[in-house]
Amino acid sequence: MELYCGNIVYSKSKNELVEYSNAYIAVENGVVEGIYETLPEKYKRLPCKDFGEDVIIPAFTDLHVHAPQYPQRSLAMDEVLVDWLDKYTFPLEAKYKDVEFAKAVYDSFINEIIAQGTMHAVVFGTIHNEATGYLIDQLEKKGISSYVGKVNMDMNSPDYLCESTESSIRDTEKFIDKYINNKYSKPILTPRFAPTCSDTLLEGLGKIAKKYKVGIQTHIEESIWESNEALKQHSNSNCDMEIYEKAGLLDNGPVIAAHFIFPKEKDIDILKRYNGYAVQCPDATVNVIAGIMQTGVLMDKDVNLGLGSDISAGYDLCIHTQIAQAVQLSKIKSFYEPENRKISFAEAFYMGTKGSGKLFGNVGSFEQGYSFDALVISGVSDEFEELSPIQKIERFCGLGNKSNIRARFMRGQEI
Amino acid sequence: MELYCGNIVYSKSKNELVEYSNAYIAVENGVVEGIYETLPEKYKRLPCKDFGEDVIIPAFTDLHVHAPQYPQRSLAMDEVLVDWLDKYTFPLEAKYKDVEFAKAVYDSFINEIIAQGTMHAVVFGTIHNEATGYLIDQLEKKGISSYVGKVNMDMNSPDYLCESTESSIRDTEKFIDKYINNKYSKPILTPRFAPTCSDTLLEGLGKIAKKYKVGIQTHIEESIWESNEALKQHSNSNCDMEIYEKAGLLDNGPVIAAHFIFPKEKDIDILKRYNGYAVQCPDATVNVIAGIMQTGVLMDKDVNLGLGSDISAGYDLCIHTQIAQAVQLSKIKSFYEPENRKISFAEAFYMGTKGSGKLFGNVGSFEQGYSFDALVISGVSDEFEELSPIQKIERFCGLGNKSNIRARFMRGQEI
Repeated sequence: MELYCGNIVYSKSKNELVEYSNAYIAVENGVVEGIYETLPEKYKRLPCKDFGEDVIIPAFTDLHVHAPQYPQRSLAMDEVLVDWLDKYTFPLEAKYKDVEFAKAVYDSFINEIIAQGTMHAVVFGTIHNEATGYLIDQLEKKGISSYVGKVNMDMNSPDYLCESTESSIRDTEKFIDKYINNKYSKPILTPRFAPTCSDTLLEGLGKIAKKYKVGIQTHIEESIWESNEALKQHSNSNCDMEIYEKAGLLDNGPVIAAHFIFPKEKDIDILKRYNGYAVQCPDATVNVIAGIMQTGVLMDKDVNLGLGSDISAGYDLCIHTQIAQAVQLSKIKSFYEPENRKISFAEAFYMGTKGSGKLFGNVGSFEQGYSFDALVISGVSDEFEELSPIQKIERFCGLGNKSNIRARFMRGQEI
Repeated sequence: MELYCGNIVYSKSKNELVEYSNAYIAVENGVVEGIYETLPEKYKRLPCKDFGEDVIIPAFTDLHVHAPQYPQRSLAMDEVLVDWLDKYTFPLEAKYKDVEFAKAVYDSFINEIIAQGTMHAVVFGTIHNEATGYLIDQLEKKGISSYVGKVNMDMNSPDYLCESTESSIRDTEKFIDKYINNKYSKPILTPRFAPTCSDTLLEGLGKIAKKYKVGIQTHIEESIWESNEALKQHSNSNCDMEIYEKAGLLDNGPVIAAHFIFPKEKDIDILKRYNGYAVQCPDATVNVIAGIMQTGVLMDKDVNLGLGSDISAGYDLCIHTQIAQAVQLSKIKSFYEPENRKISFAEAFYMGTKGSGKLFGNVGSFEQGYSFDALVISGVSDEFEELSPIQKIERFCGLGNKSNIRARFMRGQEI
């Protein structure tokens, strides 16, 4: 049993943040046993680590991140998407053929994702098995709850970053087979998006999904171009989600739909039917100007929503800034498209913690039985104005950085 | 004569960034004497401070910031404007009646603005002479090139934060008279905005402007509500800028028009005629969802453009993040209103340095004769990918924070 004292903030429901001042959190075998405003008699002789005025919050979940794009973060953000892909992103991803390059990047990526307070993630690799294997191995070693995918792309891609349909399917099965029994970092199918994947490829992946019981991450209705191109290439379907449903890719494990900016009603129906997650990546979708997710509308339809850093379309690996940006973008969205409502800070915080964490089980909150994956936030107060614990966290999301994370706990262990 | 070695980046023109790798910058009496790729014979015996792989850039200029709102930064950012003002901002500003409170806040504000790399600023105080006097005194003492205003509001304001017309004019003249001979931090007229200022008040300020030769800062065409309300209150004018022109407020010193989101053609004509500055405050105008400035259009019309942190509608005092956000918002603007073009990183950097710095003379660049107001940026590189000096600065703007500012120079002195 471990005891911690301090301010505590977490999401109880999608629009309710709970705060405690100078309370105690008891952790047993890495799991929250309870929160106490007054310490119960039975715990009074236990040592207690006191975080004073600092605030203990759940660690973040990043539902959409391209690990190989880490070297390119915050660069060329004034380009348009097609130039950004052709001049920077695709040539960079091609470099992961070189596993030594991959090792250097992925070691830094993993250190940084932990530094930024993210302990659960859904991660794109590249088309390369060996490099992506190194990535999943290291995430497993560090104990980061994650899904990691070897990317598939057999058409509509540059020559130097395009697979044959057969090798794409074969390599994917090898990858899934090798890592299917991982404990923390599990493999997931990762067709890049519908425009770069043939029907034959998707059918092949569907068979793997069924055989190994694995889920899928991909980009869904992410831009007007993508939506249209997907239907041109897959003319039997009427929306992005239907393409994957027809390929048998949705009923074998988690379904993570990145972006989901222009969903048709049918996309929403299908996503909900399979209990999938739609992932907003606030900075990213503006930087490549795909559009802005209708977060308020989707939340009111009870779609599972999470946040993604989506480097390197996003600036950096932090989720706390994306919580602030999710609120900001909901205001722009409602300004230009008034049928959309703004979302609250509590709703955005839920998207970055409990709402997305549930993909990984009891993660992202501090209710009894939740994994004590936690951050201690400090250094956001002034001496001339007292802030409530929730205000401290709101300020951290607005202007803080990783240096405000004073301590990190994963499954109860300080790391 | 001082010599510095390192990478160097600065704006030459509004769309041209210059970069040097491992070059020398010679500074004489606080002013840039020259930049040399090879050190001239005559300088070879001088000591040289070597910043290695780090990048020397001009210090930033913040053209619109509400110092008294510092305690509220990054709080209640999910409110709508009217609630944000009534529940938080106005009650906070009223507290500056207490000069002890003001001293505590303004000391922190000034330390933080320097920490964030801003050395030139145009600053709102409150309606209170004593508190705003402390602010201008301290900025003067620190040597920060600035314009500071005691705010005027004699109508359309909460009772506890509203002046009589007479006292507003009288206090303003006292304030201007007291500080008019300051060296670095100069007084400026600061009617909050047209909806809170009567015609009589503006005429009174116009006389002070003429008598003391002082300029004006205010909010211009900042929201649809403000635009309409201004014309309702000042029915002799057809646009915001005309209200101030008619009051004789534009031809006596600098003119700083914050936001300038919905300018009419006549606003633009008037602003240009008086060589005024339009100030984009990227995060702020989205957080209170006033709208997005048409930066590309205004730049192409040769309007002087600058950036403002605009706390506490903006998250924080940093200008580097607002450079990145200016690019991002130009993409949203062109997405929703295609007659607007995106702006480049070079253009946004110019807005935060040379473009706005020229309000203060030879400031914001490193051409010969410019004040050596400089920052040294470090810690943004990775070992696996070499970045150009410009790329390092682009990354700093996208994901950096004040801890990346390794050194600061003001008029050649390290501070």
